[in-house]
Amino acid sequence: MAPPNTSLLRPNTPNTPIPSTADDTKHTVQSHSNTRQKVIRLDNMNAHIRNVEYAVRGELAIKAETLKKQLNSENSLPFETIVNCNIGNPQQLEQKPITFFRQVASLCDNPDLLLPEARHIVSQLYPQDAIERAELLLQHIGSVGAYSHSQGIPHIRENVAKFISERDGYPTDPENIYLTQGASAGVQSILSVLTANESTGILIPTPQYPLYSATLSLLNATPVPYLLDESQGWALNVQDLGTSVNQARAKGVDVRALCIINPGNPTGQCLSEENMREIIEFCYTNRIVLLADEVYQTNIYDPEARPFHSFKKVLMSMDNQFHDLELISFHSISKGMIGECGRRGGYFECHGIDDEVMAQLYKIASVSLCPNVHGQILVDLMCQPPKQGEPSYEKYSQEISSTYSSLRRRSKKLEDCFNSMEGVTCNPAYGAMYLFPQIRLPAKAIAEAKSQGKAPDNFYCLQMLDATGVCVVPGSGFGQKEGTWHFRSTFLPPEHLFDSFCEKLTKFHSDFLNKYRD
Amino acid sequence: MAPPNTSLLRPNTPNTPIPSTADDTKHTVQSHSNTRQKVIRLDNMNAHIRNVEYAVRGELAIKAETLKKQLNSENSLPFETIVNCNIGNPQQLEQKPITFFRQVASLCDNPDLLLPEARHIVSQLYPQDAIERAELLLQHIGSVGAYSHSQGIPHIRENVAKFISERDGYPTDPENIYLTQGASAGVQSILSVLTANESTGILIPTPQYPLYSATLSLLNATPVPYLLDESQGWALNVQDLGTSVNQARAKGVDVRALCIINPGNPTGQCLSEENMREIIEFCYTNRIVLLADEVYQTNIYDPEARPFHSFKKVLMSMDNQFHDLELISFHSISKGMIGECGRRGGYFECHGIDDEVMAQLYKIASVSLCPNVHGQILVDLMCQPPKQGEPSYEKYSQEISSTYSSLRRRSKKLEDCFNSMEGVTCNPAYGAMYLFPQIRLPAKAIAEAKSQGKAPDNFYCLQMLDATGVCVVPGSGFGQKEGTWHFRSTFLPPEHLFDSFCEKLTKFHSDFLNKYRD
Repeated sequence: MAPPNTSLLRPNTPNTPIPSTADDTKHTVQSHSNTRQKVIRLDNMNAHIRNVEYAVRGELAIKAETLKKQLNSENSLPFETIVNCNIGNPQQLEQKPITFFRQVASLCDNPDLLLPEARHIVSQLYPQDAIERAELLLQHIGSVGAYSHSQGIPHIRENVAKFISERDGYPTDPENIYLTQGASAGVQSILSVLTANESTGILIPTPQYPLYSATLSLLNATPVPYLLDESQGWALNVQDLGTSVNQARAKGVDVRALCIINPGNPTGQCLSEENMREIIEFCYTNRIVLLADEVYQTNIYDPEARPFHSFKKVLMSMDNQFHDLELISFHSISKGMIGECGRRGGYFECHGIDDEVMAQLYKIASVSLCPNVHGQILVDLMCQPPKQGEPSYEKYSQEISSTYSSLRRRSKKLEDCFNSMEGVTCNPAYGAMYLFPQIRLPAKAIAEAKSQGKAPDNFYCLQMLDATGVCVVPGSGFGQKEGTWHFRSTFLPPEHLFDSFCEKLTKFHSDFLNKYRD
Repeated sequence: MAPPNTSLLRPNTPNTPIPSTADDTKHTVQSHSNTRQKVIRLDNMNAHIRNVEYAVRGELAIKAETLKKQLNSENSLPFETIVNCNIGNPQQLEQKPITFFRQVASLCDNPDLLLPEARHIVSQLYPQDAIERAELLLQHIGSVGAYSHSQGIPHIRENVAKFISERDGYPTDPENIYLTQGASAGVQSILSVLTANESTGILIPTPQYPLYSATLSLLNATPVPYLLDESQGWALNVQDLGTSVNQARAKGVDVRALCIINPGNPTGQCLSEENMREIIEFCYTNRIVLLADEVYQTNIYDPEARPFHSFKKVLMSMDNQFHDLELISFHSISKGMIGECGRRGGYFECHGIDDEVMAQLYKIASVSLCPNVHGQILVDLMCQPPKQGEPSYEKYSQEISSTYSSLRRRSKKLEDCFNSMEGVTCNPAYGAMYLFPQIRLPAKAIAEAKSQGKAPDNFYCLQMLDATGVCVVPGSGFGQKEGTWHFRSTFLPPEHLFDSFCEKLTKFHSDFLNKYRD
């Protein structure tokens, strides 16, 4: 298979016709490919996998790959480069890694650098605090090449607990922390623990990051969508939540958990403390486990108007009666100003989870042996960065703040760019790495899309890719209010290219409108 | 939860009484813990997870953790240290990592070391070929902090394909290679693709590495056990395979795949080429997908009598008619002489798999974004190590051969140790990292075990841990022939401690027999 058959990666609608499964142990039918029929085929494989939709790396991303190869071979395309705005992958788009983090990681990789005989040379390359941190970590880890504790290295879990306690002002037990291979892996294992059968219902936002819908498809659980209100800056309305829950429960769906992404992906909203209190009260009253995806907690662009509050902190600040709410919070090294996506590191904290369920979580973590140790090391560094007065502090804080202020400028620039386009409206990104503009498409374009069997926003994004080399994700990949069309774009292109990036998009959009104007 | 409730980690038998699931959305019953009843409990969580058994990190390993803490606090135990022979984790037991691999990894982590201004210092610490390899890798990877292609970095997949082609003498397509976070992750995703419903049957050996049974429990697929013949050096008898398949299919089980671990875990056998041909023919004729777990392919201790052959090579050497057999082979950086378990790296190669199924594999890989890049880098180095004439070649080959010959000596030593014990017989380890001796226990010991509700081999291993600090895994964690008792021990303890290690085991065993002698 070279490259993957994109038609198969196009979202399956439930009514996609699929040949019925059959016991084929006796078949010897010839297939088109001139060999006998395969034992495992699309029609008899795991149907839950077949039904998964994941647009972030779907049709557009695969087409972008193909165009990239074309760019290398010929020069027949109207652009010089592919710009991947389909995924929050900062270091792919020139974001610099944090120097201190990479120094410690490289010393842990190569402990020979810590031997006395190397020290006089190494001290010319590494600051003292990087050397000491690596020594401390290796003292607790042993070798980075050894399997660690399945729950994560105890020393690192203690540092995560310390980080959470200092962030929120409430104690945290390291035994409630699980280190994971990125937040996605944590979300997937928690959702699998929560799912008893197909009647298990999980509340997920519309629009949502498709990891949630994809995982629920895999588990054959029932997604219970709730709408984020675009006209209110993508706010979460607790009354609407209640309606979703009651309707689902009336149908016999056992609604067990609420997934909230805050700051929001793809919507970029950041919840107010008051709204969070309502949500916690709602979950408590309705016996719903709260799953808080807080991976963008440091991507906050208007900290005065919309500061980040963790659900753990807000919960603990409320009346004791709420404290035994079951809450699981997820964090990651892939986002923020760190952007170490390739290492696959993260953690989740369990609050109020039944001890017997915790023991099952441990058992299931142990089947995968352990999260990769390099990811664990980065979690340690994210939670305990250099402190004021330490040799690396100044450089560290410069790197963080320059990335932060640049991201903030770029988010505003792209927001303004979108809002300046005809028929486009875009809420500001209070947080995260994305904008999710609404595009109003001419009837002719919609008709043309439908005639090609494509969702109108998908049709629009494919033409954007063809015209500009910019790869975004159609709103239909996240879910959107009936009859509205959107796309998600990161604002991660390097700042020195950002103006031309915005110009390209603006020109494409007006050309598109002119082409299909009614 | 501190530490996990071990009673829950004790293997569940299907008839473990579990309170029946109930819609609890209206419950406000008080539980023993003085808070209201939890939303998610052992009785209403995912039952497939509840039923998973994974002894390698089960009761024994958890008890060992507790004893380790005890050793640090008091000195009341009859031993100074815990020896973890329950898991193939070489670097935890002092096995040195391969210097070249760690050098390249550390340079990729810290690209500042590759800047011209650092070069004159760095060249005192790193050989030229390590520097060049890191530069080449970064040229293809960009930053190790960026998500890679979901299937794995193309350049690294090309090197894997080259490695396989050179190993087997047949061409390999990089598009058929998937890089994974260790072999376990690969096995889990392949088994999930193969499983349509609970009637899907997968052949697994008895005894087997419990990843297979655990994953089938999670997927709610049907394990179809086949017996390895201890009296024939754990050989695989194709007639018995046929019986297992026919019996299962007669019961309506849709037997789709055969899992083979070669070299064997926990059994250490290494299949003969002739036996492999029979197996391939059997799978082809019976329309069964062959899953070849070949992670121990370089742990071969009698290469003249029992060399390793890959299933891919044997298949390609057979008549063309067999070539469209569906075969998936797994490999890992965790074993061999490399032992980089903590990085979670590996790959699988798909042969003869349906294109549409391959596209689904790609889609599902993309939901987890990508395997961690550090693991991918180690796969590259494992597949393309330093070559003769290159600066690092000599050191590399010295490190490989000294680890190899030491492992070989230790395997023989432990085999002899076991065979010298009263009532113990042990097949040699032709491959892998384990021995799986059969122990014949006195009736009194068996009665005592049963009275404590423990499997006799579990009872034996717990007493071994208490008396010696040596942690092994009872045979019941792998499955064994009715009425026989075994345990699995790695032979990874450092060679300088090996004699005392063997003495401890010998003394424990005779004390145990004397204690319970009939």
